[in-house]
Order: sequence, then C-alpha cells, then structure tokens
Amino acid sequence: MAFEAYYLSPEGDLRRGVSETEVRAAFESRRGLLWVDIFETTEEDGKFLERTFDFHHLAVEDCVNTEIHAPKIDDFRDYLFVVLHGVNHMGESEIVETAEVAIFLGPHFVVSNHNSLLYSVEGVRRLVEDDGRPMKRGADFLAHTLIDALIDNVLPTIDKMSDVAEEVEEEIIRNPQQLTLETIMKLKRSTLRMHRVIAPQREILNRLSRGEFPLITSEAQIFYRDIYDHLVRIQDLNQTIRDMADNALSTYLSSVANRQNETMRVLSIVAAIFLPLTLLAGIYGMNFECMPELEWKWGYFAVLGVMGIVIAVLVWRFWAQNWIRWGRGRARRVRPFAVEPKKLIGYIERLAKQSHL
Amino acid sequence: MAFEAYYLSPEGDLRRGVSETEVRAAFESRRGLLWVDIFETTEEDGKFLERTFDFHHLAVEDCVNTEIHAPKIDDFRDYLFVVLHGVNHMGESEIVETAEVAIFLGPHFVVSNHNSLLYSVEGVRRLVEDDGRPMKRGADFLAHTLIDALIDNVLPTIDKMSDVAEEVEEEIIRNPQQLTLETIMKLKRSTLRMHRVIAPQREILNRLSRGEFPLITSEAQIFYRDIYDHLVRIQDLNQTIRDMADNALSTYLSSVANRQNETMRVLSIVAAIFLPLTLLAGIYGMNFECMPELEWKWGYFAVLGVMGIVIAVLVWRFWAQNWIRWGRGRARRVRPFAVEPKKLIGYIERLAKQSHL
Amino acid sequence: MAFEAYYLSPEGDLRRGVSETEVRAAFESRRGLLWVDIFETTEEDGKFLERTFDFHHLAVEDCVNTEIHAPKIDDFRDYLFVVLHGVNHMGESEIVETAEVAIFLGPHFVVSNHNSLLYSVEGVRRLVEDDGRPMKRGADFLAHTLIDALIDNVLPTIDKMSDVAEEVEEEIIRNPQQLTLETIMKLKRSTLRMHRVIAPQREILNRLSRGEFPLITSEAQIFYRDIYDHLVRIQDLNQTIRDMADNALSTYLSSVANRQNETMRVLSIVAAIFLPLTLLAGIYGMNFECMPELEWKWGYFAVLGVMGIVIAVLVWRFWAQNWIRWGRGRARRVRPFAVEPKKLIGYIERLAKQSHL
Amino acid sequence: MAFEAYYLSPEGDLRRGVSETEVRAAFESRRGLLWVDIFETTEEDGKFLERTFDFHHLAVEDCVNTEIHAPKIDDFRDYLFVVLHGVNHMGESEIVETAEVAIFLGPHFVVSNHNSLLYSVEGVRRLVEDDGRPMKRGADFLAHTLIDALIDNVLPTIDKMSDVAEEVEEEIIRNPQQLTLETIMKLKRSTLRMHRVIAPQREILNRLSRGEFPLITSEAQIFYRDIYDHLVRIQDLNQTIRDMADNALSTYLSSVANRQNETMRVLSIVAAIFLPLTLLAGIYGMNFECMPELEWKWGYFAVLGVMGIVIAVLVWRFWAQNWIRWGRGRARRVRPFAVEPKKLIGYIERLAKQSHL
Amino acid sequence: MAFEAYYLSPEGDLRRGVSETEVRAAFESRRGLLWVDIFETTEEDGKFLERTFDFHHLAVEDCVNTEIHAPKIDDFRDYLFVVLHGVNHMGESEIVETAEVAIFLGPHFVVSNHNSLLYSVEGVRRLVEDDGRPMKRGADFLAHTLIDALIDNVLPTIDKMSDVAEEVEEEIIRNPQQLTLETIMKLKRSTLRMHRVIAPQREILNRLSRGEFPLITSEAQIFYRDIYDHLVRIQDLNQTIRDMADNALSTYLSSVANRQNETMRVLSIVAAIFLPLTLLAGIYGMNFECMPELEWKWGYFAVLGVMGIVIAVLVWRFWAQNWIRWGRGRARRVRPFAVEPKKLIGYIERLAKQSHL
Repeated sequence: MAFEAYYLSPEGDLRRGVSETEVRAAFESRRGLLWVDIFETTEEDGKFLERTFDFHHLAVEDCVNTEIHAPKIDDFRDYLFVVLHGVNHMGESEIVETAEVAIFLGPHFVVSNHNSLLYSVEGVRRLVEDDGRPMKRGADFLAHTLIDALIDNVLPTIDKMSDVAEEVEEEIIRNPQQLTLETIMKLKRSTLRMHRVIAPQREILNRLSRGEFPLITSEAQIFYRDIYDHLVRIQDLNQTIRDMADNALSTYLSSVANRQNETMRVLSIVAAIFLPLTLLAGIYGMNFECMPELEWKWGYFAVLGVMGIVIAVLVWRFWAQNWIRWGRGRARRVRPFAVEPKKLIGYIERLAKQSHL
Repeated sequence: MAFEAYYLSPEGDLRRGVSETEVRAAFESRRGLLWVDIFETTEEDGKFLERTFDFHHLAVEDCVNTEIHAPKIDDFRDYLFVVLHGVNHMGESEIVETAEVAIFLGPHFVVSNHNSLLYSVEGVRRLVEDDGRPMKRGADFLAHTLIDALIDNVLPTIDKMSDVAEEVEEEIIRNPQQLTLETIMKLKRSTLRMHRVIAPQREILNRLSRGEFPLITSEAQIFYRDIYDHLVRIQDLNQTIRDMADNALSTYLSSVANRQNETMRVLSIVAAIFLPLTLLAGIYGMNFECMPELEWKWGYFAVLGVMGIVIAVLVWRFWAQNWIRWGRGRARRVRPFAVEPKKLIGYIERLAKQSHL
Repeated sequence: MAFEAYYLSPEGDLRRGVSETEVRAAFESRRGLLWVDIFETTEEDGKFLERTFDFHHLAVEDCVNTEIHAPKIDDFRDYLFVVLHGVNHMGESEIVETAEVAIFLGPHFVVSNHNSLLYSVEGVRRLVEDDGRPMKRGADFLAHTLIDALIDNVLPTIDKMSDVAEEVEEEIIRNPQQLTLETIMKLKRSTLRMHRVIAPQREILNRLSRGEFPLITSEAQIFYRDIYDHLVRIQDLNQTIRDMADNALSTYLSSVANRQNETMRVLSIVAAIFLPLTLLAGIYGMNFECMPELEWKWGYFAVLGVMGIVIAVLVWRFWAQNWIRWGRGRARRVRPFAVEPKKLIGYIERLAKQSHL
Repeated sequence: MAFEAYYLSPEGDLRRGVSETEVRAAFESRRGLLWVDIFETTEEDGKFLERTFDFHHLAVEDCVNTEIHAPKIDDFRDYLFVVLHGVNHMGESEIVETAEVAIFLGPHFVVSNHNSLLYSVEGVRRLVEDDGRPMKRGADFLAHTLIDALIDNVLPTIDKMSDVAEEVEEEIIRNPQQLTLETIMKLKRSTLRMHRVIAPQREILNRLSRGEFPLITSEAQIFYRDIYDHLVRIQDLNQTIRDMADNALSTYLSSVANRQNETMRVLSIVAAIFLPLTLLAGIYGMNFECMPELEWKWGYFAVLGVMGIVIAVLVWRFWAQNWIRWGRGRARRVRPFAVEPKKLIGYIERLAKQSHL
Repeated sequence: MAFEAYYLSPEGDLRRGVSETEVRAAFESRRGLLWVDIFETTEEDGKFLERTFDFHHLAVEDCVNTEIHAPKIDDFRDYLFVVLHGVNHMGESEIVETAEVAIFLGPHFVVSNHNSLLYSVEGVRRLVEDDGRPMKRGADFLAHTLIDALIDNVLPTIDKMSDVAEEVEEEIIRNPQQLTLETIMKLKRSTLRMHRVIAPQREILNRLSRGEFPLITSEAQIFYRDIYDHLVRIQDLNQTIRDMADNALSTYLSSVANRQNETMRVLSIVAAIFLPLTLLAGIYGMNFECMPELEWKWGYFAVLGVMGIVIAVLVWRFWAQNWIRWGRGRARRVRPFAVEPKKLIGYIERLAKQSHL
C-alpha cells in the first residue's frame, strides 16, 4: 500500500498522511478537497480504490495493470478517468520512453496513479506540502497543476533531442559514420513514440478545455487551454526534430555516395596514369633480339621524358575536368534568405498609396 | 454439420451438445441464452442457419464462403452481424495471417462461425464448460468475451513481431545481409496486413461501445470500450513495428553503401601504393643499353629505399585522411536524451513562483 | 444501331430482340421491365436515347463520347445515371485497363451502355435469355446483377496481379534484373489505375445502399451493400499488391547494391593479392648490376615461398573479415511470428481468473 | 483601355464594340445580357470597373494586379467573383504555366479579365460574333461556356505531358541519361503546378453546380456539373502522370545502379583474369640465376598453356555465375494480367446457380 | 517600459506618445481608438497590461514569455487575443526564422506586442504618424493593417527562397556538390518552418473573415478575407519551393550515381585496354631460354602491331557500346509541353458544333 493522501478540509486546514479510513470519510463528506497519490499501484491498491471510491472495475484495472495504455479520457458521470503520458526520465533506454499517469477527477477529490517515479508529481507534492497552494482552488485546478507539470516536463527532453538533431545534421555533412546513422534511427523512433502520445493528448486537452465536462469550471477551462497550447508547441517541435532526422537520413546516402565518388576518382586517376606507363616500361622490358630503340643512346631518357609528359598531360586533364582539386575551399557560405530592409519598408509605402482604408 | 451448441435456460441450467431441434426450440422460446459455435461452416450449415434462425441470405453466405471478408458490422434490426479478424495462429506462412470470426448477436442468442481453429473461441468454450460464467450476464456479454479473447490473442504475435523488429534493427547496423532484407519485407507486409484488419475493427468497436445498437446494454458498452482501448494499443504497437521496419529498410541501403565505401578504399589504397611502384620496377627492368643507374653500386638499394619511403608516405596520407583506421572503436555510445534531475525539479520551482493559482 | 432489348411484360412474358418502336411503347406503358443494352454507342444511338427516353443531353453525351469518364452517379429525379468501371479483359496493354459501363436506372427500365465487349454483361444477357431470372425482381435488382457481375469480374485480374507480385518478390531477392524492374513498374501503375476507379465506386455503392435514392428498394439495398463489401475487399487486395510492389522496388536497389558489393569484393581481393606480388616479381626483374639476392641459390624459391605465404595470409584475412564465403548457405529460414499454443490458451485462463463477468 | 464589349438586347439584337457609356447604360437597364472582356487589365480599367459596375475594390484589385491569385469564388450578393486558371499556352517556360481568368457574374452581365492571350476566350468571342449563340441562354450559360472552354483547353497539354511521361518511362529502362532526369523533374513540377490549380477549382465548380448560388439556375447547374466531371478527369490524368514520373524517378536510380554493376563486372573480370597471369609472366621475368624452369625446353609453352587454361576456367566460372552473358535476349515479355475468358464467363454461371434472386 | 501609444479621440485628433495614465483614461472612456505597441515586452509591461486593461493572466504571460508560441486566436468575450507569425528579418540564422506578434483587439483599442523589431509594425507606425489613416476606420481595420503588413512582408523572403531553389535545381544537374546538398537541407527546413506557421494562420484568418467574432464588422471581414487569400498564395509558393527541394534531393543521388558511373567507365576502359597488353609485354619479358618468337626479326614489330590492333578494336567496341562519347552534346532541349494553336482553336469549333446551348 504505497499511497500518500492530502486533505484540505472545508475550513482550509491541510492535512498530510491521511490514513485509509480518513480517506473514506473525507470522500464521503463530499466537501473539501482530497488528493490521493498512489505510486506503483498493486492489486491491493486496486481493491482499495474500488472499495473506497467505488471506481469502475475496468478503470481500476488500467491503473493496476503495468502494460502501456494509450492516452484517453473516460467519463463515468461522477468522475472523469484520464490517462496521460509524460516522459519517463528514469528510463535507461536509448530511445525516449513515456511514463503514464492515470487521474481520477471528481468534484471533491483527485486520485493520481503512476508506476514510475515522476519528477512532475513529486514537484506538485512539494508545492502542496509547502503551502497547499495548488489545492486551494478546487479539484479541477489541482488536476490542472498535475497535468501541466507532467506536460511541461516533456520540454527538457525535446530540447535535448533538438540539440542532438542539430549535431547530427552537422556531422552528416562533415563526417558521415555508421554511428551517426544509429543516432538518427534512435532519434526518429523517439520522435515517433513522442508523437504517438502527444497527438491523442492534444485531443484530450481540447475536450477538457471546451466545456464538455461539467467537472471543469469555465474558469479552469482557460488554464486547460493553456496546456493545450503547450502540447501544440511540443508537437511542432517534435515534428521539426522528425523532419530534421528525415532530412539527415536522406542526406546521409548522398553524402556517402559523394565520398565514394571521390574514392573512385583516386582509383581511376591512379589507374589511368600508371597502367599505360607500366605497359610502356613492359614493352622495353621484352627480350626480342631485334628492338632498335634499345640501342639508341638517348632511348632510355626519351622513354622517361615521354612518361613525364604523359603524367603531366593526364594530371592537367583531370584537373581541368575538376577531378582533382587543390585545397577544398568550403569558404562559400551564404545567409541565403535575407532580404534588404529597403524592400520591406518599401512595401509599406506601396500599401499607403494603394490602400483605400 | 460441425457445430457445438450451449443453452442456458432461464432457470440457469446450462446444457451442452444441444441438438438441432433443440436449438430451434430454444431460439423460438426467446428466453435464456443460446450459443451456437460453427466450425468450418459448410453449405449445409448455411442452410441450417437460414432455416433455424431466419438469417439473411447474404450474411449466411459470408459465413459459408471461404473467401476473406473485410471486418464489418451489419445491423439487421433483430440481430447484428459482425465480422472480425484475429491472428490465425495455425497459419504456416512466413507472413502473419488473419483468421475470421463471424458473430450473429441477437437478444437471446449468439452464433459464431469460423473456418480455422481458433484458440480464443476454444478458450471461451472451455470457460463455459467449466462453470458457464461467460454466459451468465446475457448475449452481449458473451459476445464481448468472444471478441475480447480474439483481440487479446493478437498481442503475443505483435510481441513476437516486435522482438524480430528489434533483432533486425541490431543486425542492420552490425551485419547487413540479404536475409535481413527478406525479414524486413516479411515484417513490413505483416504489419500492413495487421493494420488493414485492426483499423476497421477499431471503428466497429467504437460503434458497439457508444450506444448505437440497442442490443448492447449500457452496462456492456463500457466493456466494449475496453476492447476498443486494446485495439488502440495494438494499432500503436503495430505502427511502431512498421516504423521500425521502414527505418531499417532506409538504413539498410546506407549501411551497404558504407561497407562498399570501405571495400573501395581498400582497393584504392592498394592500387595507389602498388601501381606506381610497379612502374618503377618496370622502368629498371627495361633493356636499354644505356641506363646509367643500373651500373651504380647502390642503385638497387636506392630504388628499394625510394619504394619504402613512397609506401610510408602514402600510408601516412591515407591514415591522415581517415581512410585507414586502426581498431574500429565502437565504444562511443550515449544515452542521448537523458535530462538532469535538477532541470526537472527546477521547473516546478519556477511554476511555484510564476503561478497565480 | 447496335442494341439488344429485352422486355418482361407485366404478365411475366419475356421478349427478346424488341424493336425500337416497341421499346418506345414499353417505356411509355410504365409497366413491366425493359432492358436495353447498347454496345459501341454511336451518335445515332445517342439520338435514339434522347428521343425515346428523353434522357438529359449531357448524360447521353457521356455514353456516346469514347473518352474515359470517372465513375459517378447523377440523380435526374426520374432516373439515375451511373458510370462504373470494371476491368477491360479485351485490353492488349501490359497495364491493366478499365472498361466503362453507363447505366440508366428508372422505375421500369434499365439502359446499359458500353464501348468494349464485356464478359460480365454478356453473362447477364445469357442468364436473362435462359430463364429471365435477373429481370423478375425489378429494375433495381437487374441493375444490381449487372453491377455485381462487373465488379466480381475484377477479382480474377486482381488474383493474377497478386500472383505476379509474389513472383516478383521472390525474383528480387534471388536474381534482380532489369526485367523485374519493368514488371514492378507495370504492376504499380496497374494498382494505381485500379485504385483510381475502385475508390470512387465504393462511395457510389455506399450511396446506393443507404437508401438515398427512392428507386432502390430497401430490399435491394442490402444486395448493393454486398457489392460494397466486395469493393472493400478488392481495394484491400489492390492495396496489398501495391504495398508489395513498393516493397519490392525499395528492396531492388538494396539487392543490386548488395550484389555490386560482392563484385567489388572480388575486384578488391584480386587487386590486393596480385598487385603486391607483381611488384615483388617486378623488383627481381630489374636489371641492376648489383642485386645480391639474384645470385643466392634459393633466392627464386624463397620469393615463390614468400608469395605463397602472402597469398595464404591475405586469403585468411579476407575470409576472417567475411569477405570470402565458402558455400552460400541460405538454409536459415524461420517462420518468424509463430506463437506457442500454451501462451494463447494461457491467456484465456488468466481471463477466467481476472474477469469479473 | 483594352476591352471588347458585346450586348444582347432584350429584343435579341447582338451588338459588338459597345462603348464605355453604352456599357454603363446596358448595365443599369438590368435587362438583356452584357459581356465585357478586358485583356491586360490596367489601373484605368480597374477604375472603369469600379465606376461603372460598382464592383468591390478588393475584387477589382485582384484583376489589375498581375500577381498570381489562387482559384477562388467570392459571393458579393449582387454578383459572383470567380478566379480560375487554365493553361497558359503562350508560356515559353519548360514547365507548364497557368493563366488566370477572373469572371464577374451578375444576373445580366458577365465581365471577364485576363492578362495573357487565351485561346479559350478567343474562341468564345468568335462563337459570339458568328451567331451570338453562347449569349442566348443568359449570363450563367455564357459564364459556363467561358469556363468550359478554359478547362477543356487544359486537356491537350495534359495529353502532351502524358506522351512525354510514356517516352520517359521507355527511356529510363533502355538508356537512362542526365537529360531524362531533367525531363522527369520538369514533368513532375508541371504536374504539381497543375494539381495546385485543379484541386481548388474542383471545389469551386462543385459549389457552382450544387445550387449554392441563386445566380446559377438549376438548368445551368447540370452543365456546371459537367465541367466538374471534366476537372475530375483532368485531375485523374494529372495524378497518373505524376505517378509515372515518381515511378520513373525511383526506377532511374535502380537502372543506373544496374548499369554500374555491369561496368564493375567488366572491370572485375578483366582484373581477375589478367592480374594473376601478369604475375606469372612477371615471375618468369625475374633475373634469378637459378631458375630451373627457364632452361626446360617446353617451359615457355607450358606457361602459355597454363595461361590459356586459367583464362578458360575463369571465363567459364564467370559465365556460370551469370556475370557474362552472350546475347542480351530481352525477348521474355508477357501480357502479365490477362485472364482466360473461361474464368470470366464461368463466374456468371456460378452466379446463376448460387443466386437467390 | 518600452511602449508607444497612439490615441485617436472621438473628435478625430490623433495624439502620439500617450502616457500610461492617459492610456488608462482612454481605455476607460470606451470611445475613440487607442493603439499601444509594446516592444520587447518585460515582466513590468505585463503587469501594466493586466493592471490597465484587465487582460487575462495567461494571455499576458504569452506576451511576456520569450518562448515561441504557435499561432492561435483566443476569444475572451471583451477582446480577442491573436498570436501571429511573420518572418524575422533580423534573424542571423541560415534557416528562415519567424517573428511573433501578439495582438489584443477590443472594440476601442488595439494592443500589439513583439519581441523582435518588425519592419511591418514599424511601417504601420510610420503611416499612422504621417496622417493617421490606418486608425480612422476603427480597431478592426487597424488590426487588419497590422496583420496585412506582417503577412505581406513574408513574400520577399519566399521570393528569395524561390530564387535559391531555382539555382539549386540548375546546379544539381550541372555540378552536384556537398554545398548544394547543404543548401537543399536548409531550404527544406525553411519551408517546413514556414509551413508550420502559415497553415494555422490560414485557419485563424478564415475564422476572422467569416463573421464568427462580432468585433470584426462585416465591412472589415472582406479585408480579412483578402489576407486569407494572400496566405493561400504564400502557402502555395512555399509548397512549390518544398516540392522543388524534394525533387532536387531525390535527383541529387541519381546525379551523383550517374557521375560515378562515368568515373567507373574510365577505370574499366583503362583496365580493359592496358591489363591484357601489359600481360603480353610481360610474356615476352620472360627469360625462358627457348622462346622462338624472340629470335624472329619482325617479332618486336608484330607485337607492337598486335597491341595497336587490340587498342583500336577495344576503343571501337566501347565507343559502339556508348561508353565513350566524343563531345558531350547537351544540345537536345525541348519545350516539352507546348501545344499547337490549331489544336486549341479547333476545340472551340468542335464545341460550336456539338453544343446544344
């Protein structure tokens, strides 16, 4: 039984470490605000929830069950059951993992469940213990604080992913490697996983913020709308990272092909220069009895001269064809899309003239 | 005539192996709960269904016909006709196959048809034979149990596919082979096939769970909603596997190109080193009469020395250009997206300050 | 004037080869059922249609005009005008061609137009001539029979395409060729063309089957729904074939790259072994006066020995690096996604325990 | 002031070359039908339009402004303002360009604007000048004739693109070149540009044909529906061309890779045959004093024999591995998706038996 | 406190540099038109906004907060809160950056916030200072002018991107380089970023122009519709640029592969010609005692002749196989999609004949 319960009495007294019996009493009084946070929910916790709060069996099973559940919102009239995902900052995997929080939201109570330790819930508990502020405006605001903390804690991870994506983009042009490829794959899968939890959550927050559920007061709706806006931004950032990863992957192959091309050129140049000369040397290494050139005094030096000329001509040709470059010269670098200020101010002047306003 | 029929009388007696005449009688009494499970439905079974239950000819034909039918739900007023797909665990193919179940759901009866042996139906029959539990809450709950078992039996296959996808992902980086390519193709087609049956089933379960059909009591709707949630999760997992396979395929080519690049480098290095030296040796193998170097005492050793120097210089250049690497060093390996706890807790503190809650 | 007309009088007499004047009379009697099938519709036929049936000029023009028209349904109050596509089995092209049928459906008449010979219409005519059955239940059922035959005749072509897709998939792994590439392209374009006629037809059949048009009795609607289900299945199959072709195309390049890699390895191995040895032989072929090794008695054999050792070492290295393989060994072959029965039955037992049903 | 105006008086007299004052009078009489066609609309024309017809400033600005405007329809109560695009057949670019026509449609007038010379408007003017027919049925029919001519003039371009696409497809398999690549790029961009104007126009015509605007009589709606059908067909054709171009592009790389593979094989075969033999010759060119084979009488011939055998064996091996082919043999060529007639007729017979109709 | 306020009194007097107290008074008078433009909004500005205008805390926080916010519109009854993005022309990055403007629009006031210097707002301020025109028609028209200037200032950047895209397209065919690859990546990401702000803004302008908010008079709606049309055009142009970049990327690889192919051919030709000849020379360089050819008088010249013939034959073969080309000849260049005028006019004549109009 690993739960922590807080109770704010109608008189405004905040109590911590409320026992199971007191939870039951607080729940039945239908006054004040009760928050029960269950960590690593067991079978027993499940029974406790069903017994005390009379929650629907299937909702409780979703809490007990350690499988992953897709984000959803179920309206059981007396209470809402919301499943949301944040980032699991405890995860050891190389791919971003999500962590699940299930929240029961009733008129006078909030019950939160999670199987992994969450910094966001931890933080809200600390706030409550400090001065009870998040509990003072009612259950919908407490739930809002929990969800807001959960969603906002996604941002540091997104920022980290964004940094990695930018490093990868740089690396792919300068020095494409097998390891870069792996990082791209990991990055892409992380964004996909992220997308799969963020997209349905956007829909959930949209429903929470547009007055569909009477449990959310119209005052609180604007605050839920704010979380919705954060989700929109997270989704945008995530999509940007995914585009960068896609971009990087499609560039990788081109980049490798480019390098291979350079390897091939080295090979071709070497072969084109030395194979004919080797043949020439081979010819004068033949043992025919009658080979007049061999007896010429300057024969040997003539052959050396011819070889030198052939090398010079071929190198010049390859250089002319741009196969050989002296010094890479990556200096050309432009800020491609800047527009002169005159053009911009100019527009307004045109507007002033044309406008019939 | 391969059917097995169970009848739970209004008095609560469960009978097994009900005969055709009794089925007719039970159906007409319009009381109790009748379950007829037909396996390998023949023409004759079809006639039996039309005769006894007065089902629509087209629905019966869908049962008799061994072609594959897309998942669907038809509302014939007096009864629902639902076609659903699970995984065919009997399939011998290398690609995941689906198995079809057709269910007629009426107020006092359930008729299920399937042409392949299904572990899920088998399991429900065993449950009924044990203590009749799945039949005790009415036809809609019996149908729910059947569908739930069918859908849940998809999960072990999805898990297996997920394992294969992860192996493949590892293999593609370490040692890409033709066989890996084949496995990816099989995997991808399996996910596509899965997707094609899961997506419409989600829609069907959605309709079953939102009170569109009076045959499903509002009590049972929540349970159908639960199957819907499972389908959402299966679809997510399936989509993840598909993304992994797509990822793997686009990585494969890059990985092969990378390896080819290394092959090319070996070739280019060998050629760049040995072709010039062979020319040198060829030159001093020429038979000109007048080649002064040949008579020098240290000529031979000078040539050997020059050759050694050339080799050393070229090897150094290639090494400097990163074409030759001593020891692969795949040690670099990061958990890329981890965020320091301080940053996460920090957020909450910021929240506490800014919040006007 | 190439038409064939059948008339089922209200008394149940079926007449064949009805003349133009009789057609007019039958149409005006507004009783019985008249079927006019026009093949290779000419300008004249068009005028006949406008004159006799008073059809809208634009609809008639769609019949006369030999251009391709997208599937559509137009409601002219007194009659429906439906354009549908089946497969043109007469087509000589390597890509699947579609054939158009235009049907005017009124309360007491059906007029069908087509410019290519169609097995499906031919078949329905044969049925009518045998015993008139398809005409006995009214105009909507006759139109259903025509459409059903048209759509069902798509299946053999889809099956053929599916077979080709499977062959291609096999070939791409075993022996990728230019011809395989061409077949994939043809296959893909065929599925695209198919998709472009099937998708709108699905929508048309959906409208026909949901009671939007009073000309279709509710009894007939279920039968139109059945055609709709067939279209869903055809679309699924077609999509599967397209996925296979896409798969095959993206695999092709990898497969070719793989083979090229092997070619490169042969080249690199040959060069890496023989170039250094040729240099060695070249060195001892030089004509320096002072080359002590040449006079050693075992010099020659020593060189041969060194060459042998170098070959052995290099071959071993390449073999160790997996560049040389003795015997391909494609034996490894798994049924990747099979699950043990125990796991499946096991689930049901778990269900039995947990279930609160 | 470059406009041409036609006025059909209520009495049926058609006048050409109507002056500005008469245009004003005709517009205010609110009878008959006035058509003003403005070519290369200037600032002055704009003022004329605002002054005479009292059109909204923003709509007139869209006419005067030479920028490109997306297709749209604006309902200003008294008149509709429609912007549509056809193909600019005057365009000199290698990519298909679109030409814009803006039409004001009122109950008794049509005003058309365009900045490039358009064959379609030219043609309609010629028709009007011949016998005034397009103006005899009212403003909505005149506008229909203009739009119909504009849209139908897209078809010859689409046909040309289709021809190019087919040539490209052929070329890509037979002889892929840089120029082919360029043509594909041009083709693809043309289809994209086309798509971007056709898709919104489809929506506009849909709205015009479904009775949303009272200015379009129900009689004319069917004719607008006809243009809609043409747009559907154009979009289909355009999509087909785009698919072909996409197909061609993805095939191009495979085709080039294939050819490269053949180049590589030539190289590998040459190297594999001649490098070992050159080593052999090199060995017997060494100048060791003690090389017993050199003194053998048949030594030389033995070496030549060994060389011949090695060549024969290697050629045979390469041939056996399919690396060398004698005669290309592209004879294999199948009509892949043809189905035997028996199968097709057979279906109908099956239908006859099973059918309960 | 960096704000600039303008007040147009109901009497028509325009005052500039209105102080904080006067702003409060003007706001409370609920007459005239007040415009407050806040630049680099600080915490303090936020408090000022909440204090003076009583704006919602969350909206104000969006202004103060320097994070990026997705475009959105929030309706707070008394005022609208709109967040829009233009291009940040101050951005130093190589990728196009967007700049955010937040606008509060009330019946008698407009408050605009932005954190970067914006040419568009600057321009509108200049217009107001000149003669106050943009403020004379009310708050909705002032907001329109601000938004219009913001959106129109996107066009010069889009044009610049379009130019870069065209250069890239040229470059990719003529001379593909690593730098081209980088430019494509930058271009693509710029279009993606642009798309992500333009698409939601289109939706916002759509809502503003269709009478959803009573604060926008129906007269102003048409002007908002005009901005909507601009956004449609910008989105089209942006999409075109993206297509070009995608096109260029997929062409890049083909282009590189093509060039590699040519490199390979050089290599293969060199090897195929010189390796056999080198063997020949090597053979006659062997030191066998008995090599009859060596003693023939014309042996040497015969060998030279054979070599010449071999070279001639191989060069001819390679030339015949199209591996060697004399002169590139990129002359072939067609205007691919032009249609003859006759065909176009011809259509109209056909129309005249067929038409029943």
